[in-house]
Amino acid sequence: MGLIVQKFGGSSVADAGMMKNVGRRIIDEVESGNRVVVVVSAMGRTTDNLVKLVGEITERPEPRELDMLLSTGEQVSIAALAMVLHAMGHKAISMTGPQVGMLTDSAHNKARIRDINSGKIHQLLDHGYVVVVAGFQGSNIDGQITTLGRGGSDTTAVALAAALKADRCDIYTDVEGVFTTDPRVVRSARKLDTITYDEMLELASLGAKVLHSRSVELASNFNVPLQVLSSFTGTSGTHVVKEYGNMEDIVVSGVAFNRGEAKISILGVPDHPGMASMLFAALGGAGISVDMIIQNVGSGGRNDITFTVLEEDFVPAKELAESWVAENGCSLVETDDNIGKVSIVGVGMISHTGVASTMFNALAKEKINIQMISTSEIKISVIIPRDDIDRAVQSIHREFKLGDDPA
Amino acid sequence: MGLIVQKFGGSSVADAGMMKNVGRRIIDEVESGNRVVVVVSAMGRTTDNLVKLVGEITERPEPRELDMLLSTGEQVSIAALAMVLHAMGHKAISMTGPQVGMLTDSAHNKARIRDINSGKIHQLLDHGYVVVVAGFQGSNIDGQITTLGRGGSDTTAVALAAALKADRCDIYTDVEGVFTTDPRVVRSARKLDTITYDEMLELASLGAKVLHSRSVELASNFNVPLQVLSSFTGTSGTHVVKEYGNMEDIVVSGVAFNRGEAKISILGVPDHPGMASMLFAALGGAGISVDMIIQNVGSGGRNDITFTVLEEDFVPAKELAESWVAENGCSLVETDDNIGKVSIVGVGMISHTGVASTMFNALAKEKINIQMISTSEIKISVIIPRDDIDRAVQSIHREFKLGDDPA
Repeated sequence: MGLIVQKFGGSSVADAGMMKNVGRRIIDEVESGNRVVVVVSAMGRTTDNLVKLVGEITERPEPRELDMLLSTGEQVSIAALAMVLHAMGHKAISMTGPQVGMLTDSAHNKARIRDINSGKIHQLLDHGYVVVVAGFQGSNIDGQITTLGRGGSDTTAVALAAALKADRCDIYTDVEGVFTTDPRVVRSARKLDTITYDEMLELASLGAKVLHSRSVELASNFNVPLQVLSSFTGTSGTHVVKEYGNMEDIVVSGVAFNRGEAKISILGVPDHPGMASMLFAALGGAGISVDMIIQNVGSGGRNDITFTVLEEDFVPAKELAESWVAENGCSLVETDDNIGKVSIVGVGMISHTGVASTMFNALAKEKINIQMISTSEIKISVIIPRDDIDRAVQSIHREFKLGDDPA
Repeated sequence: MGLIVQKFGGSSVADAGMMKNVGRRIIDEVESGNRVVVVVSAMGRTTDNLVKLVGEITERPEPRELDMLLSTGEQVSIAALAMVLHAMGHKAISMTGPQVGMLTDSAHNKARIRDINSGKIHQLLDHGYVVVVAGFQGSNIDGQITTLGRGGSDTTAVALAAALKADRCDIYTDVEGVFTTDPRVVRSARKLDTITYDEMLELASLGAKVLHSRSVELASNFNVPLQVLSSFTGTSGTHVVKEYGNMEDIVVSGVAFNRGEAKISILGVPDHPGMASMLFAALGGAGISVDMIIQNVGSGGRNDITFTVLEEDFVPAKELAESWVAENGCSLVETDDNIGKVSIVGVGMISHTGVASTMFNALAKEKINIQMISTSEIKISVIIPRDDIDRAVQSIHREFKLGDDPA
């Protein structure tokens, strides 16, 4: 008899009918002889509606009150799902984050989990209950309700699985698993049976919407066996594991991309120590997350610094760069908000040569100009014009023979 | 400097705009130098929507899970209202029932308040906060979320006012106060400046929708000065007090009515001791609340028993009566679900004679046939055909000169 943590996202529980579908997935697991803890997100557009209400009230909601408000979304879901399970003839009990002893720090809207009272859940499991826990929320030492921020419900599920020493943490979503790339761009994209934490981390942070990087990090730290699978199809998904059994065979696991990037170049930066540090500290202070950075030594003791940001941060980043240029005697700012990023990810890269050249060759065949390159041990990313992304992904996917197609 | 508890119902906080209106009422009180605790219900149709969701899942929701679900409605309101007050530049903090130490028994869906941790609220008030408390909810000794059932938010407000020894408990609603009768039936109906707890209790239980009898009872027990007033007009409302200064002058305070009654007569009940008790125990056991009861000694050692129930209980009450008649050798059941009740209420009745005959005279003038009569120290109720209710109320209101009109 195993212990399984199942997590269902908002799109899997958007209405009563879908909740019943989720109920069947849970009961399948129970009837296989497992003890089950379920983590659930807010139903469908609930959180959006709450955020809309906030927008009608104030531009700057108090973080504590925002958590008080948003945490209701998951509370509705757990109660409804427990009712669904009752109606299907099974013992189930809903628990809010505070009730389940999900202790967090006091950083409202982006709290981090400190501890979980796993004894309480074990006790309920011992009494034969399916325990339905609200994702995304907890409480601090003073009993204030907190929320975990983006990717919160995945993080709740993985943290529970770690604390309960679960045999598996199944993340149900609206896709069938992790694919070699987006099937909407490459028809022959193939679902991966297995992927490593490290690869998943790169994919998550690169814009594959399947799992939030925070939860993958946590799973990796506590070695929680994850599975990403569809709540609709019932087929097995992608297992996220520490390492492949047959690591040597797999060079590149997938091709990720992000259409929404923008590039800012600052030309003629005086070559004093600490100039770059000042610039990026200012951007960080404004809450702007910088992705790639390239610095070229220029002529006459001056440098050019180029960096990329997410498209939504482009306008504030550009304004900040322009005023920084004026204050620090640089020449000018050049921008391009019509770019995107394509990356290949694979743990096998470490031990294989020629991976980068294969990727660049795929791009050259399509006459796509590479603007920036960044690499890590298991990833190579390039910045290219946004309009070329689809062709780039298709060509790379083909070149590495990632697809189902024999060609 | 006083301490005021203000309660706002769901129709007063139906959207962000109305919340801002409520915010101004609160700030008016703060700026008058008072410390303010606010109790708020779920926004507009929130609770209805949650109940609808339940209906899509199950006919018999687990009471614990229903409380888990419904309590989210008030939690949304308190967070939103605290945000409104912040946005208006005032210190405010939202508190759920469990957070504020609203300890109840474990009767889910109809919990009763055991204790309130008033120290916590006093502490927040001392720090200059407007404390916004979720109505309708609390938690039991095990930390399970409970709800108080019908009239719950009014009850929360009065209980808080009692625990905090507040100077006044203002119940804001969508009417201007308590009227001599429904202004939709009698145009000249007059808003009462003052009414006693006892009168209000009779009016509340008779279908005047202003205040739930449970909260009036609590206010009466703890002598909490209540005011019922409109959240829209800003004018002063009706004060509910222990007794009138000038009690002698007021004979009848108001005319209440309820269109939705039904009558069941059981004929030929064997004249054995305990027969009536058995019948009403069976009705009570089925959750059917019986209003008036009349028993006539009939001929041949048999009795006729007639009783009234609310219209919504008519079908189950009739079925129960029919099977009871079959089991107990009675003759037959006669029913009439086309009746209603009209009542006059006034503490002055105790010391005035001729009140009943004035009422009956008003009905006789309109040729309205009285089917049943029931009296208490401060109330006379009659059952009449439903179609005659408007004319009855108008005639009685006129006869007792309750209106604004000089006639």
